[in-house]
Amino acid sequence: MDPVTMIQIKRCHDRPHTDKELEWWIQQYTAGSIPEYQMSAWLMAVCWRGLNDRETATLTRAMVESGERVDWNSTGTCTNDSLMLLVDKHSTGGVGDKISLVLAPLAACLGAHVPMMAGRGLGHTGGTIDKLESIPGYQTCLSVEAFQSQVKNVGCSIVSPNETLCPADRKLYALRDVTATVSSIPLQTASIMSKKIAENPNMLVLDVKYGAASFQSSSADAELLAHSMIATGQANGVQTSAFMTHMDHPIGYAVGNWLEVYECIQLMKTGKGSKDLITLVVVQTAQLVKYSTSFVKWYTRKEETPW
Amino acid sequence: MDPVTMIQIKRCHDRPHTDKELEWWIQQYTAGSIPEYQMSAWLMAVCWRGLNDRETATLTRAMVESGERVDWNSTGTCTNDSLMLLVDKHSTGGVGDKISLVLAPLAACLGAHVPMMAGRGLGHTGGTIDKLESIPGYQTCLSVEAFQSQVKNVGCSIVSPNETLCPADRKLYALRDVTATVSSIPLQTASIMSKKIAENPNMLVLDVKYGAASFQSSSADAELLAHSMIATGQANGVQTSAFMTHMDHPIGYAVGNWLEVYECIQLMKTGKGSKDLITLVVVQTAQLVKYSTSFVKWYTRKEETPW
Repeated sequence: MDPVTMIQIKRCHDRPHTDKELEWWIQQYTAGSIPEYQMSAWLMAVCWRGLNDRETATLTRAMVESGERVDWNSTGTCTNDSLMLLVDKHSTGGVGDKISLVLAPLAACLGAHVPMMAGRGLGHTGGTIDKLESIPGYQTCLSVEAFQSQVKNVGCSIVSPNETLCPADRKLYALRDVTATVSSIPLQTASIMSKKIAENPNMLVLDVKYGAASFQSSSADAELLAHSMIATGQANGVQTSAFMTHMDHPIGYAVGNWLEVYECIQLMKTGKGSKDLITLVVVQTAQLVKYSTSFVKWYTRKEETPW
Repeated sequence: MDPVTMIQIKRCHDRPHTDKELEWWIQQYTAGSIPEYQMSAWLMAVCWRGLNDRETATLTRAMVESGERVDWNSTGTCTNDSLMLLVDKHSTGGVGDKISLVLAPLAACLGAHVPMMAGRGLGHTGGTIDKLESIPGYQTCLSVEAFQSQVKNVGCSIVSPNETLCPADRKLYALRDVTATVSSIPLQTASIMSKKIAENPNMLVLDVKYGAASFQSSSADAELLAHSMIATGQANGVQTSAFMTHMDHPIGYAVGNWLEVYECIQLMKTGKGSKDLITLVVVQTAQLVKYSTSFVKWYTRKEETPW
């Protein structure tokens, strides 16, 4: 195996990559043995020719294996117990998308554990991490041990990516950013899913946005991305489902990091808020904890649906 | 103008590059301001989306302008005099392709001046320079001044590319070689034609080979390449024509650097040789010097066609 042949295979499109090729490629790149100019040519060839579902799942796994995968058993959290379900949610993002800030504590209240690695600024919207950091003194950068301990003791933890998780994605994302290779369904899938799989949850819900207030204008592309992420999650042993959310307008009342945090706090304190935000939070949380008995209890106790 | 936008324009294929963009891109790359990983992503996007004739001609011109263009007037060679015609020939190469070794001295005998910058090893065949270097002590690396002086005094000079001619091509060719972006009609055109245009000839004949013994299996691709090179030559003020030569077998009797030199020396000494080699040499030389009165004189004096 050599880098030129690797690029040539994708460029010529006569056959897909083998698992061995992709594993070797990511290992060598993470180790610094593949120069950036060869990786960027390959990334552009992937934008051109695509990756099939098997290639995408293998690329994602190789990226996960470039670092560590959180070991929840070592912390005493029992992943076989339905009351200790480890769940996460990822959104492709849009203006005013603040769902995670309410969803993570809500799912925790319902007995799930939410290890959520979130991102920073995405284009013109803030990322979940940027929003949380508008709270003075809030720490988003935790060690894997502190992250695990918080998830276990508090029920949820929203942190920024750790140095030891998916180093291949960190390198690849930085390179894609400067080589116009960000928008590519298999590359987006591998980047998002490698981080989510490294968290090692049992269940993952994806929220794939499309429309004027999101980053995807076409519902067809959003559907392809959703399909690709579900296939990659399932292939890597994570129960994955996806919502496709049409958004031509910002979600909720507020737009702006601190304003969005304030809106979420008000919603959690009072139960009152914008209907679209409440609906999205509740529907996605329900999807995440549907196998959790505590959710069923809560649902029964309230004797009315919250949506 | 910034590199990511430049790559994005080619990747998205909504519009061709402007001349200004391409000039800026090559200037910045030659100056070392564009990193290799951005250029390689752009090169792969060109393999994907192509360049139109105008973009190809502009890219080629920008590559010529990255170095110097030989100034024949400064040496006293009069390019306006039909007896001082500056001509060159380029072949895309194949097994046993030794035409240049006979064509250059023959055209010089007919009164033309042949400033020929030739290449080294091309895949499994030797390049013209490799063949000449099988002569012990033969020097192929000359300064521009020595090159000009030899063309003026001897009538022809076959040299390897000079440091000061087309530095952008040297950088780009090395990068294409390690990023699987060699085979691309506009990139091949720009690489070949920038070197030929830097020689500043009046007339250029191209020999585009296709078939099992060449590097191009399809005649359709060979025709596209021929068309692209002619358009680029004409757009840059060089009278350019092309032969398309079908070759399923090696040219002439001999294959191998020194054997091919020996075959050419025997042909020039005795006038005897393989019919295919003689035909190709004579037809291409005739095309090159067709405007030269000395050729017509020679043709009349012999009172028979040599083919």
